[in-house]
Amino acid sequence: MELLRRKIREKGIVVDEDVLKVDSFLNHCIDPKLMQAIGKEFADRFRHDGVTKILTIESSGIAPAVFTGLELDVPVVFAKKDLSRNMSCDIYDACVHSFTKGRDYMVCVSKEYLNDTDKVLIIDDFLANGRAAAGLGELVIMSGASVAGIGVVIEKGFQKGGSLLREMGFRVEALAIIDSMSENGIIFRNEEEKRK
Amino acid sequence: MELLRRKIREKGIVVDEDVLKVDSFLNHCIDPKLMQAIGKEFADRFRHDGVTKILTIESSGIAPAVFTGLELDVPVVFAKKDLSRNMSCDIYDACVHSFTKGRDYMVCVSKEYLNDTDKVLIIDDFLANGRAAAGLGELVIMSGASVAGIGVVIEKGFQKGGSLLREMGFRVEALAIIDSMSENGIIFRNEEEKRK
Repeated sequence: MELLRRKIREKGIVVDEDVLKVDSFLNHCIDPKLMQAIGKEFADRFRHDGVTKILTIESSGIAPAVFTGLELDVPVVFAKKDLSRNMSCDIYDACVHSFTKGRDYMVCVSKEYLNDTDKVLIIDDFLANGRAAAGLGELVIMSGASVAGIGVVIEKGFQKGGSLLREMGFRVEALAIIDSMSENGIIFRNEEEKRK
Repeated sequence: MELLRRKIREKGIVVDEDVLKVDSFLNHCIDPKLMQAIGKEFADRFRHDGVTKILTIESSGIAPAVFTGLELDVPVVFAKKDLSRNMSCDIYDACVHSFTKGRDYMVCVSKEYLNDTDKVLIIDDFLANGRAAAGLGELVIMSGASVAGIGVVIEKGFQKGGSLLREMGFRVEALAIIDSMSENGIIFRNEEEKRK
């Protein structure tokens, strides 16, 4: 997605060869027009896959997910990282390791929002080690629903999450895949090649 | 906002006279079309107030905020409840007490996303005791920016947050104000009367 790659080139900050800071448009300050374009792109890629629900994870997945949900006209469920008093005890949960935060956390979804007739599109902002997406996939499978695919805004192609999820049989669509990054710049994987 | 009141009547679950569960369309499972309508309504109410930025708080404020940001064509910043490794140390922070979760938590925003020329519209899903909105207001004031107003999806009119914030001089716009609720139903404040 050229618009996104341009934004990453212009506004992304390469902190080191593993860490890309995109909080000026994606995960702290949000560019709503870009999110709308991202939602349209995800919707185009999954429009013929019978998606009935979108599942994402708080908080940075919510903006791209709601615009995708609007385009596909399906509800968006966001998995929570802790239990609120208002949440039913009847939940699916899975343990996810965050390399960014250096700890494990639980992700959970009320059972009432995933059921065995659902075809679920998982959306998230980043794919690096793939733990968050795999955790969301686990929740979907527990519910008896099926996974239509996984859509991520930015994939760190040099980390193993993408290949891991694809080997598990998931269809993964990344709107920008970074093959490497350094103080000299960001190298994106050729998108055309990727989508063959 | 009649569409919202209808949704609350149809899908909201009155747990007790203080707690309304709206996680089937607002804060766990999200109805994207309703969020788009909410964004348009907030935008209409604040369109002539020179808003330059929207500030919300993770996670349930994000969906209504991004649609408002899209309509007003301004960036949306979401305050975080904990510090991630990728976040700059240069932050504004404030302490907020959550009655729902029964504890205090910090809210923080990178200094680079609020500045003294900003006119900030604060958006959140619920207004009850007003602590979250007041905390966000504190962050805005610390930055030297001004608060254009506070937009909340649902105000619990029987709790003191709304009057507290209005007494502090903030303009508060609630899309639905609940005067009372019980097993017999939900009583909304007359919207026309409210907007005079």
